Amino acid sequence: MRVMGVDPGLTRCGLALIETAPGRGVTALDVDVVRTRADEPIERRLRAVHEVADEWMDIHRPDVVAIERVFAQNQVSTAMGTAQAAGVVAMAAAYRDIPVAFHTPSEVKAAVTGSGRADKKQMTLMITRILGLQKPPSPADAADALALAVCHSWRAPMQGRVAALDAQVSRSRAGFEAKVVEGRAAATRTAGVGRSHGGTSTADQERARAAARGMARTKGVRW
Amino acid sequence: MRVMGVDPGLTRCGLALIETAPGRGVTALDVDVVRTRADEPIERRLRAVHEVADEWMDIHRPDVVAIERVFAQNQVSTAMGTAQAAGVVAMAAAYRDIPVAFHTPSEVKAAVTGSGRADKKQMTLMITRILGLQKPPSPADAADALALAVCHSWRAPMQGRVAALDAQVSRSRAGFEAKVVEGRAAATRTAGVGRSHGGTSTADQERARAAARGMARTKGVRW
Repeated sequence: MRVMGVDPGLTRCGLALIETAPGRGVTALDVDVVRTRADEPIERRLRAVHEVADEWMDIHRPDVVAIERVFAQNQVSTAMGTAQAAGVVAMAAAYRDIPVAFHTPSEVKAAVTGSGRADKKQMTLMITRILGLQKPPSPADAADALALAVCHSWRAPMQGRVAALDAQVSRSRAGFEAKVVEGRAAATRTAGVGRSHGGTSTADQERARAAARGMARTKGVRW
Repeated sequence: MRVMGVDPGLTRCGLALIETAPGRGVTALDVDVVRTRADEPIERRLRAVHEVADEWMDIHRPDVVAIERVFAQNQVSTAMGTAQAAGVVAMAAAYRDIPVAFHTPSEVKAAVTGSGRADKKQMTLMITRILGLQKPPSPADAADALALAVCHSWRAPMQGRVAALDAQVSRSRAGFEAKVVEGRAAATRTAGVGRSHGGTSTADQERARAAARGMARTKGVRW
């Protein structure tokens, strides 16, 4: 699987591509940093970021694009530009039907170093080790993009397993609820309580079962 | 001049096109509202907004795109998505070399109603009057986009005049500074103070004048 990691920004936008294969670990394939000038109009800067990200997706054909999630609370002055840069990269992926995943900085740190509060030095050290690089990734800004991609490659299978488990739990719950409804309907039939508005008991059962299924579907694993 | 007004958003993004001509006032040519579903991934929603904005620019060929400026402080939960929607529209304009202008909500209100704190009702009433519409703009969300475009068409010539004045002041200042430098150089020549590193006084003067011009250019009207 090819994962493109993006550390969004207008002044500097880090891009990285890694490849993962079962049993063969993680390999760094490419890194780049897009720089745009602060005195350029915002729309030109966004275009520049989009152009490079778009070209990357053309060349590297990633299976998924992992982007750092930007919060409005952090550094209000630059947060909007950073969010917009993330937006144009995510949009470029959507035009190619490439799935996009967002990870928070602490999720990335936790995935790479084991601690959500790791510092830059620790992060660079771990990324260099994980990817088996001879020296720290260069340019330095690319390290965050690599970390994003590594984080995704490790979190995604876990998220996939959790989703599969969720679905299984959902199915069990739906089966259980359908049985309860069926049992209740059977009890009603035995007690001889008729319906005045003409629904047959089979149709009632089906409606009840469908309702139970629907409920189980939307409520997921919350029990 | 054709002005495209954009009230950015993911749930609803208002688009409007107006035409202004000297002595003929302002005419509304088109309005539209892009809606995207909150349960769609953000990148798909941005793509949908971009697709429609892009198509609009293809069809309507606006001379300028006026977009509401989004602040991170307001409604943190939706501000990022709104900023990203504004970003993809601005970027679409940049790909066509169409200039983009941002106006704050209070600038728009002040331009349209005379008060930066006008309410929605006042705004709709004034926009309906200014554009000579038989009834309030529909869909309602389009009113804000129309207001953005009207605001720009009124502010832009003023901004243009201010810029022209700035340039004039800059030129005067550069002329003045060049004269000061020239005067100083002449005084140095008269005093018989020679340069040891071999620059001729004419070259020195030219360098000094160029420096004065450069300074005047970057410092603008701050005096």
